[in-house]
Amino acid sequence: MTRELVLYGAVRSSAAWRARIALELKGVSYREIFHDLNKGEQNADSYKRVNPQQLVPSLRTPGGAVLRQSLAIIEYLEETNPEPALLPKDPEQRARVRALAMIVACDIHPVNNLRVRNHVRDAHPDDPRAMAKWIEKWSAAGFDALEALLANSPFTGRFCHGDTPGLADCFLVPQVGNARSMGNGVAAWPVVERIANACAQLPAFRRADPASLVK
Amino acid sequence: MTRELVLYGAVRSSAAWRARIALELKGVSYREIFHDLNKGEQNADSYKRVNPQQLVPSLRTPGGAVLRQSLAIIEYLEETNPEPALLPKDPEQRARVRALAMIVACDIHPVNNLRVRNHVRDAHPDDPRAMAKWIEKWSAAGFDALEALLANSPFTGRFCHGDTPGLADCFLVPQVGNARSMGNGVAAWPVVERIANACAQLPAFRRADPASLVK
Repeated sequence: MTRELVLYGAVRSSAAWRARIALELKGVSYREIFHDLNKGEQNADSYKRVNPQQLVPSLRTPGGAVLRQSLAIIEYLEETNPEPALLPKDPEQRARVRALAMIVACDIHPVNNLRVRNHVRDAHPDDPRAMAKWIEKWSAAGFDALEALLANSPFTGRFCHGDTPGLADCFLVPQVGNARSMGNGVAAWPVVERIANACAQLPAFRRADPASLVK
Repeated sequence: MTRELVLYGAVRSSAAWRARIALELKGVSYREIFHDLNKGEQNADSYKRVNPQQLVPSLRTPGGAVLRQSLAIIEYLEETNPEPALLPKDPEQRARVRALAMIVACDIHPVNNLRVRNHVRDAHPDDPRAMAKWIEKWSAAGFDALEALLANSPFTGRFCHGDTPGLADCFLVPQVGNARSMGNGVAAWPVVERIANACAQLPAFRRADPASLVK
């Protein structure tokens, strides 16, 4: 039985990246076990026993329980380490922040993650642009929604909600990272881009960035 | 300014169905405005002002705020109407319940929802089975994971978590409904099927079911 938090992650997983940002913002001690997704290390039997979905991230708690799904992991961190808070106090505002996160978690990322990208590539062997077009289509729809909700809300500040980083920023930043590495970037969505750039100034976000992890 | 909760929903949206189950389990008074998704009523300008994603559900609160994304809406209902509780008290157990919900919300439904199904159908005009094969692939991967997590946990009871219905059941039941109406059903996942059938015995789930709404 370990007393530390263990993140089962991957350098190139944006879902693990979200959890890493939350851990860094909370300032809690943790250790990350990295899986090379391109080598399929998440498909090993040893990891299937941790997470039957064979997706990252998972989080092992000090008591030995294994938690799965990035949003559930971050809500757990919020409940067990309340400060600094990643969610506001007001229920309507909490719903706003969670909805911004879920646009990323439900409407952009699942349609564009590794398993779906590979499937789309293999289904269109004659179209080398098939995967890129697929990514751009769903990514753009999601960023359009995020931009509208961020640009038209009095609650948007330096970050997605006010002037301190929170749960929605944990989701926004890795998706912007994906758009920059796999797509056309986010210049078409200026509020999204401004917030991602503000986050990049903070040490917690810099420590969680895949660029900091590649040796 | 209205004093009631207004759900912007649709009979055939499984995401709206989740919110409707939660509202019925909480026993709170609400009114649902139905959108015919096949007619594209969610794409009307009037709804775009409510929800720039033009997805259902949204929830208008008594104070006039509009909340979006089914999971954010249900967490709001839980925070503002704590009884009956849809989440357990213990943070690790709360994470378990949320993770079960997110397997549906992030890993099954987004890959299979209307906009993606239509895209896959249009991309494969020569293969009348393209959409069905797509649905079966991602649906099966998600139900495999749900079955493994439900079958191997001491926390699973008559429902996803213990012997009272909760947040995970709000997500499981509509996805099972989709599998029954669009796919091969859920007989391959016996714990999933048993729990869905237990939910179907409860008046709250029956009132929320699309079959109860079709006049």
